[in-house]
Amino acid sequence: MQSSRLEAFSDGVLAIIITIMVLELHAPDGPTLHDLWKGAGQSLLTYLLSFVYVGIYWNNHHHLFQVVSRVDGLVLWANLHLLFWLSLYPFTTSWMDAQDLARVPTIAYGVNLIGAAIAYSLLVLAIRRLPSGAHIGEVFGSDWKGKTSIALYAVGIALTFVVPWVGVVPYVAVALLWLIPDRRVERWLQRHDQVPTG
Amino acid sequence: MQSSRLEAFSDGVLAIIITIMVLELHAPDGPTLHDLWKGAGQSLLTYLLSFVYVGIYWNNHHHLFQVVSRVDGLVLWANLHLLFWLSLYPFTTSWMDAQDLARVPTIAYGVNLIGAAIAYSLLVLAIRRLPSGAHIGEVFGSDWKGKTSIALYAVGIALTFVVPWVGVVPYVAVALLWLIPDRRVERWLQRHDQVPTG
Amino acid sequence: MQSSRLEAFSDGVLAIIITIMVLELHAPDGPTLHDLWKGAGQSLLTYLLSFVYVGIYWNNHHHLFQVVSRVDGLVLWANLHLLFWLSLYPFTTSWMDAQDLARVPTIAYGVNLIGAAIAYSLLVLAIRRLPSGAHIGEVFGSDWKGKTSIALYAVGIALTFVVPWVGVVPYVAVALLWLIPDRRVERWLQRHDQVPTG
Amino acid sequence: MQSSRLEAFSDGVLAIIITIMVLELHAPDGPTLHDLWKGAGQSLLTYLLSFVYVGIYWNNHHHLFQVVSRVDGLVLWANLHLLFWLSLYPFTTSWMDAQDLARVPTIAYGVNLIGAAIAYSLLVLAIRRLPSGAHIGEVFGSDWKGKTSIALYAVGIALTFVVPWVGVVPYVAVALLWLIPDRRVERWLQRHDQVPTG
Repeated sequence: MQSSRLEAFSDGVLAIIITIMVLELHAPDGPTLHDLWKGAGQSLLTYLLSFVYVGIYWNNHHHLFQVVSRVDGLVLWANLHLLFWLSLYPFTTSWMDAQDLARVPTIAYGVNLIGAAIAYSLLVLAIRRLPSGAHIGEVFGSDWKGKTSIALYAVGIALTFVVPWVGVVPYVAVALLWLIPDRRVERWLQRHDQVPTG
Repeated sequence: MQSSRLEAFSDGVLAIIITIMVLELHAPDGPTLHDLWKGAGQSLLTYLLSFVYVGIYWNNHHHLFQVVSRVDGLVLWANLHLLFWLSLYPFTTSWMDAQDLARVPTIAYGVNLIGAAIAYSLLVLAIRRLPSGAHIGEVFGSDWKGKTSIALYAVGIALTFVVPWVGVVPYVAVALLWLIPDRRVERWLQRHDQVPTG
Repeated sequence: MQSSRLEAFSDGVLAIIITIMVLELHAPDGPTLHDLWKGAGQSLLTYLLSFVYVGIYWNNHHHLFQVVSRVDGLVLWANLHLLFWLSLYPFTTSWMDAQDLARVPTIAYGVNLIGAAIAYSLLVLAIRRLPSGAHIGEVFGSDWKGKTSIALYAVGIALTFVVPWVGVVPYVAVALLWLIPDRRVERWLQRHDQVPTG
Repeated sequence: MQSSRLEAFSDGVLAIIITIMVLELHAPDGPTLHDLWKGAGQSLLTYLLSFVYVGIYWNNHHHLFQVVSRVDGLVLWANLHLLFWLSLYPFTTSWMDAQDLARVPTIAYGVNLIGAAIAYSLLVLAIRRLPSGAHIGEVFGSDWKGKTSIALYAVGIALTFVVPWVGVVPYVAVALLWLIPDRRVERWLQRHDQVPTG
């Protein structure tokens, strides 16, 4: 099976996830800057964080399927599994935000981030099994970024037991780590001179 | 007419259905695990169930249109009819959840599931009429899975008259039945060595 | 310019319009059939009506762009104009529904329907100007369906001045009129044996 | 990398932004024209303004990627940056509307408009760096429209310090400025006789 429709569906789901989080941004009750900060300041920051995360996943997903063009049923489900975890971002973001970065909601957000990261790794594994995915290892190497991210999420969860809001620091660090564009796929495509057709 | 735009539109609708159900997941009122469980535990489970259902339909829809590439007006309407039933999932899910799996809402959810299953069968029939859909029977065989599902939904509805929440058990069984990837389309495509162009 | 991205964007907007109307379907307050009917019965019917309308526009839009493949800036704006009117459906539907088919909201719904119908006609005119749209007249003939629809909407608005809810009858009639699949495009494509490339 | 998936994802996000603003249009509380005007009149006008803005960005985005077909990681992020600013439109629109065009919310809306305009300019710069984007300058010339827009937004923000609601006048002027179809891309495509493949 070709991967084009899987990509289109994932694009749709990611586009909606990224956008419905805006629905949680309620217009402040008053007309002053103070109202804006009090009513929506923290929400805007957590929205920005989750926007960046979904953006990162879209970016990685896009890169991943640049080098695979045929998929099977297991990959479809591994992809849906990833989308499930990502679809919980609006929920955990809004809980963490409404509870002012309290311990348990911040842990829940971290668990959500780890869940998505693991689901992404499983998706990569599901693709590697395929004949057309054999060069995935060659393209992405040891995937130190993915492993570091999961470790940082775990550090974040551990830190919430010291001071709850400090747990967010490693989460932000992971986002920054991925914001630096990943040139591995582009370099590989250049070396191979064209989009592989599986 | 080519089926590509029908697929794109269906992807859009399914992506939105799967995602707006998250809007029904309200952030719990307090910051503890107990609040999470009390405020959103059951909602998370019903969300998961409906997510899996929509995922199954997307998967099957995707497989179905792998083997058909030209459609007519009747197929367009049969497809919209299916999307209509699926679009009611967020509504019936949220009612069943808000009423804690009471009898009538659980029946309503089951009726919704049966409605979608029948609409899917009608879509398959509408496609079979087409010259390019003649091999559908060859690919999908007797469709025992589809027939078993409808029977299980009916069993679920009947069970709610004994103990309301028990009706959910067959609904979950159907979801598990379909989670096992369906290799029929892949096998057929392999035997025929390429995507048919109708 | 090619029309493919215009189609994809329109698909996205229509998919969202058709789906967010479900968000107006609030779960009934109690667990009985009576609650369902009282709390959501009429909403389900108006939802069905608007779902069918958006489905009709998607269908017609799909047929229209089967015979045009290149567009210009004016067509892009004529298309956005149509999408604007369609995007108001959730708003007018929900007002008419909340006010139990009172006179002014039912007129507002009718005005919305007429607005969309006129916007669609303007889109067809914008396409006819193009070299690749010259055969539109040949395909769609005198467009008696489009003209009849606008007349029926006007009749509906007039009838609300007699008995408000009676105005909905012609609206439903228009929906039924279009539900009968339109074979004109298919016949034309068959005669010309392939998708025109304009 | 090809730009097709970037376009599809952007289409999805823009389609959702344009549509979820409708969710802010609450059905008026009563059944009269007066209720409509009092309850939703101003909201309808601000919705129209934001709809036109998102329409303009979609239009320009569409034109821009007609002349580029390959992108890299930096362009993906520049595009996500633009989508972030656009995704805030529903939030700032609803605040400005709920506060009846008070000073600070009107400024916030203007800052949002400027942010999006600058993000768009950065996206154009990111594309110009690419081999396939070298002719962007040739197509769009000095981009006086983009520069004039940013200047008019600044004028609008300044005017709110005199009389708050007057600041909206230049915002509307920018929208009108862009509503006139931009023939530059079409002229260039005609001269070059085909869609460039970069």
